Amino acid sequence: MPATTSPSPLTPDHILQVGFSFWACKTLLSAIELELFTELAKHPLPEKELEGRLGLHPRSARDFFDALVATGFLERDDNVYRNTPATDLFLDKQKPTYVGGMLEMCNRRLYPFWSHLTEALRTGRPQNEARNGSLSLFEALYAEPARLKEFLRAMTGLSRGSNQTIARQFPWSAYSTFADIGTAQGDLAVQIATHNAHLQGIGFDLPAIGPIFEEYTQECGVAERLRFQPGDFFKDSFPSVDVITMGHILHDWDLDAKEMLIRKAYEALPDGGALIVYEAIIDDERRQNAFGLLMSLNMLIETQGGFDYSGADCTGWMKKAGFRETRVEALVGPDSMIVAIK
Amino acid sequence: MPATTSPSPLTPDHILQVGFSFWACKTLLSAIELELFTELAKHPLPEKELEGRLGLHPRSARDFFDALVATGFLERDDNVYRNTPATDLFLDKQKPTYVGGMLEMCNRRLYPFWSHLTEALRTGRPQNEARNGSLSLFEALYAEPARLKEFLRAMTGLSRGSNQTIARQFPWSAYSTFADIGTAQGDLAVQIATHNAHLQGIGFDLPAIGPIFEEYTQECGVAERLRFQPGDFFKDSFPSVDVITMGHILHDWDLDAKEMLIRKAYEALPDGGALIVYEAIIDDERRQNAFGLLMSLNMLIETQGGFDYSGADCTGWMKKAGFRETRVEALVGPDSMIVAIK
Repeated sequence: MPATTSPSPLTPDHILQVGFSFWACKTLLSAIELELFTELAKHPLPEKELEGRLGLHPRSARDFFDALVATGFLERDDNVYRNTPATDLFLDKQKPTYVGGMLEMCNRRLYPFWSHLTEALRTGRPQNEARNGSLSLFEALYAEPARLKEFLRAMTGLSRGSNQTIARQFPWSAYSTFADIGTAQGDLAVQIATHNAHLQGIGFDLPAIGPIFEEYTQECGVAERLRFQPGDFFKDSFPSVDVITMGHILHDWDLDAKEMLIRKAYEALPDGGALIVYEAIIDDERRQNAFGLLMSLNMLIETQGGFDYSGADCTGWMKKAGFRETRVEALVGPDSMIVAIK
Repeated sequence: MPATTSPSPLTPDHILQVGFSFWACKTLLSAIELELFTELAKHPLPEKELEGRLGLHPRSARDFFDALVATGFLERDDNVYRNTPATDLFLDKQKPTYVGGMLEMCNRRLYPFWSHLTEALRTGRPQNEARNGSLSLFEALYAEPARLKEFLRAMTGLSRGSNQTIARQFPWSAYSTFADIGTAQGDLAVQIATHNAHLQGIGFDLPAIGPIFEEYTQECGVAERLRFQPGDFFKDSFPSVDVITMGHILHDWDLDAKEMLIRKAYEALPDGGALIVYEAIIDDERRQNAFGLLMSLNMLIETQGGFDYSGADCTGWMKKAGFRETRVEALVGPDSMIVAIK
């Protein structure tokens, strides 16, 4: 460095922090798998009791617990461990605020699949169950009820914050009916119906989803205004409603399928009707939304042709389909919604 | 929550950030594996040229590069990618400041091994090559020259900052000779010799390390004052010198072996001689040094009985061996050194 300048000295700290971050990540994911936070939500426990309750070997149980203290997920007083306020609220399986479903899926599926990221980058091919050429992501998910339910719960946990925001932020008073395409458990439909008592809604998804959707809408007390409509969005047209929503759908598919789905929404809507697309929309400059860009790499790992996209990308497809007006609005964290008016 | 308080609302942000952090982590590790930063250190490249140079499939190359922009490891202007100052200095394989060796090992070995963390926590058993019961970590490393060299370079990259600090911070002027036990490539010995022209030193390690140590000390221009002494620290006594150093050694072994190694150091030193032990020493309260606690879980994954420890733990073992005086001093990042005077 030239002697005349005095730049702040460069360190490898950020590189090493990110490069080793799989340690703290996998420690949290294992704690969720072991239901540690659910156990401590019942009551705080001393080290040895917690070790026994979780069935851990004594060799490293204390390191495991104290690593969770040092990374901010547990508290400890006099050798008694308890949840933090946040882990108690969001990682106790007995609470409706549980967000661990997606992280259970990260632990069991995505973490090991991502060990093949380099191969995915070289070949462009998925690295999940499809790696053996047998099944696509969705065939694999739907083939096994337990795996399907895990996936659906995961989607709900990941999206609830944005679902609630859409339910409040969009001008629902101007509309009477809506349909959520690829509804899964139905949490977006449930949140919209809960916050807008005048609306009637439809959850649209493959037939296997029906009982799961109906169970969930009943639990949430909005089953009277929400009904399930079985359908395959590759084969069937969409229900005729005032507003169509698609959350975490478009990024699963290649460009042709994305444009086809937007076109089907256009065809199903009346003049003045609205299409709402939402997920981790990448910023137009592709510099800020790291989660959206990494989610797109996750689509490389998990799907044949899926990718995430920017607001500019999506509003371009919407205009091409005939929508006259579009806008992008931030939701929660990395999520945004794109609204298109016919 | 009681209505009379107004706490800041709880969010799951920290949980989700850490739970998904394997995405950004593995993206960086794959970039290092693909030698992306080494390529860009030659000169910045437009997207398509960089994609071709690295042999990437067009499907997700741009998402990969832009994810590295959004996570702070690349810069981009007019679709031309270049290294940041830090990635240029620390992740270009052609520079002596390269720290990627340890991260190459994280990518190839530790990331996939850590997918079995839950099993390790339940059984107390390692999850590396030893998982199949065949080889211990060090048997596996020494069995394959390429793997051994990767491991040794990794250790050097990880420890250089602390090695340089020890070379300057310890009062070397009071001593004439030293030996570094388990020296590997010999970077600690090299840094000490480089910064202290009056010292003569010994690198002590298994015979297979000899040529690698000698190549490295010659490259660094200190071969005249450093010699290699082959030995097995489980069988052989230590060289008689004024100061004995052990970096990233004790945590590999169980308590009996730790105490045996400290005892051997005590026996080899003269009155007034010093033992320096250093690695990611855990804080005595076991609340702050997350890296040290996670490193201890890494020892669960990688070794039969190894674990990391606090300054209080280690000074206790040193006092028990007969050392009359001990002190703990911070080095770089998560590392500290523990000095014991006979």
